[in-house]
Amino acid sequence: MDEQQAREIIETLAGEARKAAATLATARGEQRDAALNACAAAIRNARDTLQQENEKDIARSEEFALTEAMVDRLRLTDERIEKMAAALESIAAQVDPVGRTIAAYNRPNGLRIEKRRVPLGVVGVIYESRPNVTADAAGLCLKSGNACMLRGGKEAMHSNLAIAAALRQGLSAADLPVEAVTVIDSPDRALVPAMAQAEGLVDLIIPRGGGGLIRAVARAATIPVIKHYAGNCHVYIHAGADPAMAESIALNAKCQRPGVCNAAETLLVDAAVAESFLPRVAAKLIEAGVELRCDSASRDILSAAGLEDMAGATEDDFRTEFLSLTLAVAVVDDLSAAVRHINTYGSTHTDAIVTESVSAADRFVAGVDSSSVMVNASTRFSDGGEYGLGAEVGISTDKLHARGPMGAEDLTTYKWIVTGQGHIRT
Amino acid sequence: MDEQQAREIIETLAGEARKAAATLATARGEQRDAALNACAAAIRNARDTLQQENEKDIARSEEFALTEAMVDRLRLTDERIEKMAAALESIAAQVDPVGRTIAAYNRPNGLRIEKRRVPLGVVGVIYESRPNVTADAAGLCLKSGNACMLRGGKEAMHSNLAIAAALRQGLSAADLPVEAVTVIDSPDRALVPAMAQAEGLVDLIIPRGGGGLIRAVARAATIPVIKHYAGNCHVYIHAGADPAMAESIALNAKCQRPGVCNAAETLLVDAAVAESFLPRVAAKLIEAGVELRCDSASRDILSAAGLEDMAGATEDDFRTEFLSLTLAVAVVDDLSAAVRHINTYGSTHTDAIVTESVSAADRFVAGVDSSSVMVNASTRFSDGGEYGLGAEVGISTDKLHARGPMGAEDLTTYKWIVTGQGHIRT
Repeated sequence: MDEQQAREIIETLAGEARKAAATLATARGEQRDAALNACAAAIRNARDTLQQENEKDIARSEEFALTEAMVDRLRLTDERIEKMAAALESIAAQVDPVGRTIAAYNRPNGLRIEKRRVPLGVVGVIYESRPNVTADAAGLCLKSGNACMLRGGKEAMHSNLAIAAALRQGLSAADLPVEAVTVIDSPDRALVPAMAQAEGLVDLIIPRGGGGLIRAVARAATIPVIKHYAGNCHVYIHAGADPAMAESIALNAKCQRPGVCNAAETLLVDAAVAESFLPRVAAKLIEAGVELRCDSASRDILSAAGLEDMAGATEDDFRTEFLSLTLAVAVVDDLSAAVRHINTYGSTHTDAIVTESVSAADRFVAGVDSSSVMVNASTRFSDGGEYGLGAEVGISTDKLHARGPMGAEDLTTYKWIVTGQGHIRT
Repeated sequence: MDEQQAREIIETLAGEARKAAATLATARGEQRDAALNACAAAIRNARDTLQQENEKDIARSEEFALTEAMVDRLRLTDERIEKMAAALESIAAQVDPVGRTIAAYNRPNGLRIEKRRVPLGVVGVIYESRPNVTADAAGLCLKSGNACMLRGGKEAMHSNLAIAAALRQGLSAADLPVEAVTVIDSPDRALVPAMAQAEGLVDLIIPRGGGGLIRAVARAATIPVIKHYAGNCHVYIHAGADPAMAESIALNAKCQRPGVCNAAETLLVDAAVAESFLPRVAAKLIEAGVELRCDSASRDILSAAGLEDMAGATEDDFRTEFLSLTLAVAVVDDLSAAVRHINTYGSTHTDAIVTESVSAADRFVAGVDSSSVMVNASTRFSDGGEYGLGAEVGISTDKLHARGPMGAEDLTTYKWIVTGQGHIRT
């Protein structure tokens, strides 16, 4: 497929999605919620078909050289199908973000100014592997009055198309246009830049997946992109921390689910408490199977405490999202040094301080340039569900428009509504 | 200058701006306001220097083949210098957008979730001609705790550098780092894409100027861009309009200042009232010097009323931002047809309905996909000052992050602050 052909395919699909978006934008909330509930029912009814189509993808997994972990993520078990359906119902149960007034006031000349939330229009999502993203992303777009164009990975194509077919049944049942959910059914790579350049047709692109995919989309795009990069999260143990709390949070942030973006990758310990705190927590971490990579100060302290032969941490280790039971460790002189370390090596995702000092917490919150800052809580709470957003499209590592966990409201924009009584400008 | 050299220059400047941004982000509001007031004083004190430097630009205007209108926009008169200073003071007087809480609530598990406004970091502005943009953009960035990197047009380089020097005096006087305001002092074109690709250093690019400039920046950018395209604004006279109000708004929207982006370019008249309304308003518009370009239905009506030889409107006319005393005119069957016309030919900038019908106004507001929708008010009110924002960085024609007039608050993002009492995830 050449560029021109790709552009034409995207223009046709996006043109239809755009028409559907116009209908969705003026549909009542109860109709969109009815559609979401009908989608959930259709997903449940389609279980056998979904699993048959899913088997076709799994049968081809060798062809795509998928690892066992990837095949596992791909598989649509009974439980995962039920979870998809339940997520759609929980999205339906949320408050409608569309039509909410953000600000409203009168000007001295009597003009009434209002900012009111409206859907974005057409949202493009480009993702890999897990087929449930198809239902989650479509559900959040539908809730927020947007049509969506979904481009999943080629390894999940049959599964994604089968899920989309079920979602379209749900839309039909609620009398909404099926083009509101469009899955791009060709794996051709030329379609990605074409989608990211569909100015006037697609309003936003959300790439989810590996760094390479996200960078490629950002580079090609002429329409807005919200990027979802990885998380290199820190836990900083302040001199004024409660030691038991510090230990519990450090262990939880690293070990509770090490393969996800809000797990901790670096532990920073204030020099003032390093000698007392580090050996204890290091022993617990090692017991939990964690490999520590230590800067020289922390190595010395651990060595003096009888924990010898700790691996040294390189500059690179402090930049790495291990996504495994590996943890970089450093001793920092004070809170300012901790903030500097985080802003230098971090990924602006989620960073935590453990402290009993109000002013230390304030300084950390103000100084750390991250989308989520935790005070006396594990980094693992950085998540749309934990923040009460229901589902999430992802965790934005961008600063523009939406930052951190993105829910349905983040898929809306606003409109200025200005009401006069024949006002003219003089 | 090759790509590599451009990248190095931008990296150096942006790196310094970034350090300044970290200081600004934690500076108190009163210090940023003191700096803004000191900047205003420095601009006033520097009047002679500003005018000498401005003369150098004007002396080179032939070299750059500037039109008389462009030379006029470039000129720093006493009045314009005073206006720049006064704008900085009015920005200082606004409520501080930094640190405002957008949302705050407790989760059932006792976690406290808060969304709090924080600066973006480093904001890049790429613009043409008018030197006052240097002071306005820098002032809004300073108010919102951001450092700015300004890249003006080569034709205004001396003026922009002189303004920036005055602003830096103001920053120094308030003990803030001068790198918070950085004007790029080379006209080399390679610097624009380098700036738009400075990931991790520049957080946002705002291009202001002609469509060509904006498209080029959007195409090159890998960091977020908020585009400020032109306005093709409509006034729709609904069947239920008060005729006198309709006439007054149509005339004001077209004639009060035809060269700006919120002036009307197309008049849509409902078929039900076209015969009674059109001939009267057309006579007034022609009297005011407006050239009408009419679709066949409006031509017929005007011709029957004795206004013959009206120019025909082409498809292109309905897409054109005339920025002059030219107005496209069309008769539409009903409100739905008006909305369709606006969504097809418009630029999603500002569109108005004149009507006494509440339900017609509601349908228009919901159906028109524009950043500002006016009900019984002239499109000319679409402006940061008129909306009470103080100054504006521009009028965003994008949907993401900020839509319509952009003030200081739109130059902020937010941070999630999560406070627990030792919360870990289970």
